Amino acid sequence: MTHKILVLPGDGIGPEIVAEAVKVLNVFTAEGNLSVELEYANIGGIAYDKEGQPYPETTKALANKADAILLGAVGGPQYDALDRPLRPERGLLAIRADLGLFANLRPAILYEELASASTLKPEVVAGLDIMIVRELTGGIYFGQPRGIRVLENGERQGFNSATYTESEIERIARVGFETAMKRNKRLCSVDKANVLEVCELWREIVEKVGKEYPEVELSHMYVDNAAMQLVRAPKQFDVIVTSNLFGDVLSDAAAMLTGSIGMLPSASLNSSACGLYEPIHGSAPDIAGKGIANPLATILSVAMLLRYSLNRPELAERIEAAVKTVLASGVRTGDIYTEGDRKVGTAEMGDAVVAAL
Amino acid sequence: MTHKILVLPGDGIGPEIVAEAVKVLNVFTAEGNLSVELEYANIGGIAYDKEGQPYPETTKALANKADAILLGAVGGPQYDALDRPLRPERGLLAIRADLGLFANLRPAILYEELASASTLKPEVVAGLDIMIVRELTGGIYFGQPRGIRVLENGERQGFNSATYTESEIERIARVGFETAMKRNKRLCSVDKANVLEVCELWREIVEKVGKEYPEVELSHMYVDNAAMQLVRAPKQFDVIVTSNLFGDVLSDAAAMLTGSIGMLPSASLNSSACGLYEPIHGSAPDIAGKGIANPLATILSVAMLLRYSLNRPELAERIEAAVKTVLASGVRTGDIYTEGDRKVGTAEMGDAVVAAL
Ligand SMILES: CC(C)[C@H](C(=O)O)[C@@H](O)C(=O)O
Ligand SMILES: CC(C)[C@H](C(=O)O)[C@@H](O)C(=O)O
Repeated sequence: MTHKILVLPGDGIGPEIVAEAVKVLNVFTAEGNLSVELEYANIGGIAYDKEGQPYPETTKALANKADAILLGAVGGPQYDALDRPLRPERGLLAIRADLGLFANLRPAILYEELASASTLKPEVVAGLDIMIVRELTGGIYFGQPRGIRVLENGERQGFNSATYTESEIERIARVGFETAMKRNKRLCSVDKANVLEVCELWREIVEKVGKEYPEVELSHMYVDNAAMQLVRAPKQFDVIVTSNLFGDVLSDAAAMLTGSIGMLPSASLNSSACGLYEPIHGSAPDIAGKGIANPLATILSVAMLLRYSLNRPELAERIEAAVKTVLASGVRTGDIYTEGDRKVGTAEMGDAVVAAL
Repeated sequence: MTHKILVLPGDGIGPEIVAEAVKVLNVFTAEGNLSVELEYANIGGIAYDKEGQPYPETTKALANKADAILLGAVGGPQYDALDRPLRPERGLLAIRADLGLFANLRPAILYEELASASTLKPEVVAGLDIMIVRELTGGIYFGQPRGIRVLENGERQGFNSATYTESEIERIARVGFETAMKRNKRLCSVDKANVLEVCELWREIVEKVGKEYPEVELSHMYVDNAAMQLVRAPKQFDVIVTSNLFGDVLSDAAAMLTGSIGMLPSASLNSSACGLYEPIHGSAPDIAGKGIANPLATILSVAMLLRYSLNRPELAERIEAAVKTVLASGVRTGDIYTEGDRKVGTAEMGDAVVAAL
């Protein structure tokens, strides 16, 4: 069976890091271990430049036929002056909505070899391994009504709606519990139910789904406390499940605890296992085209792609092991370099992973 | 002139820590340096117990006549089973709305003597001094419509509205700029304008108000990035101004960077300089009544009260200096104790501050 993979290099360092990730995929196809058909399309700023839209129809058509999507990054200062609907990040929001990618899995893992990069004390973060399950197609990101209106007194008012239905909560809760079952069986649901009605319903439904997972230890935490606890004692968490907006904030905080966001992949899944895979870092326009960006987060995104969309966990594990081998050998891109390491560029890092495979 | 101060001890450790703060006020009155009339009332769980409501009419009447309010803390596990409108924290939300306390000032200061309590590396947090200006009576906390409704398909949907008008944004932006003018003249406005229309308006109005403060260096940051930057390099911030919900999350994260939330006060102000002052920590039911809670955050809240509502900055500075003297002398409550210090209880700590005054 041949899997259709759509590759969306995007902006900034996107094309460079995606090229290395494709090298890694090619190892498996050359081995005869995997059959994939790669197609390329535009998203974000480059899509606006070439096709006038951050998520053009051509890309949309290909995305809807793909088994999985590998994305680099979107955005750049040259697009800041565009009208909001045309900006690169709207392409990202559009593809999430279009494909129904409601479950965003964002691991925050501290690699032992990179422990010193964290701004937190070693004993606080050593061995950190959290999985954040963020709802990605609902909540205030997509809620209606929204806009800027003029009130009777002539003043303008901005307004957005945070909404969740029972079924939206149920399906993301289920992903949370299933994820916890495969890990240490602890799930923390983060909300603000002491203030928001939408979170009251969230908590009720998460509790209800929890009845089906008696083995999972479920807890609830308010979002302000969760932000505190991530700083105070992050290792208390196994899996966190939360809404779109809270997940946006907490997953970035959690990622930064590791000090190496150039290492962290992500997966955004829909209900038919099609997924979009991308590094959590941005398009880093300042270093784009220099061949120095760290491709490991994108390479590890390929591992997630193999695990979640192609159902090839053994290949995913090979990539993850290869990345560990490379780190252990002291090979580093600039962002994770410390004295005594061997500093390499983007392509060399990709080659090192290929060699370790 | 005699200032009317309403004292709301609240729940848990509230009464104990407030008693020490009152001792400190009494030093100034005994000196003949200050004339205050203290009245006491109930809020939170104790108010529900005694008067059936977390913010009773009696308290409301006194609050509306007060020049300033000193609050301990609210909440406790015995109230978790109550209907939400009766829970302690609803008392807090009600008094904020009732008095129009729209500007919440939350400093995150790292005391040199307590630097080791932080989970962050010393070089990352040494000298940390951030002021977070959080909007406190608008946004999704109070936005209408809100609730849980039944959709046409029979499913329930939870919904809340995040709203801000131009004038609401303008007045909190002004507090942000004024605060920055008294400090290092750098203001970072945090929003999510790449996704939310309410934040588009927020950013526009903050920019507009900024024109009146050419000396203040204004920047904008998305909330997810702000959460990251607080972990990565918190000292880049001077003053942060943000909405109610983002402020809730970021100010707790910022507070935890110091490692000593038992030290951090807060002020919530309205447009006529009446303010509510409280420690940022909670009611700590586990240690309530044991006489071991740290009263310093509440004592430092009195300093803010003197500065912002009573316009007595010189008295505020005396309290702040006294707290530093006490810390330098090695006197510590349990929460900030490390080996070699002199461990004391709540009352002894209050006495130590009084002695240092
Ligand atoms: C670019 C932005 C719209 C996006 C989001 O807020 O979801 C990003 O921050 C993310 O987390 O993927
Ligand atoms: C108790 C709760 C309603 C409150 C809030 O969310 O504002 C608290 O977290 C705070 O920050 O004062």
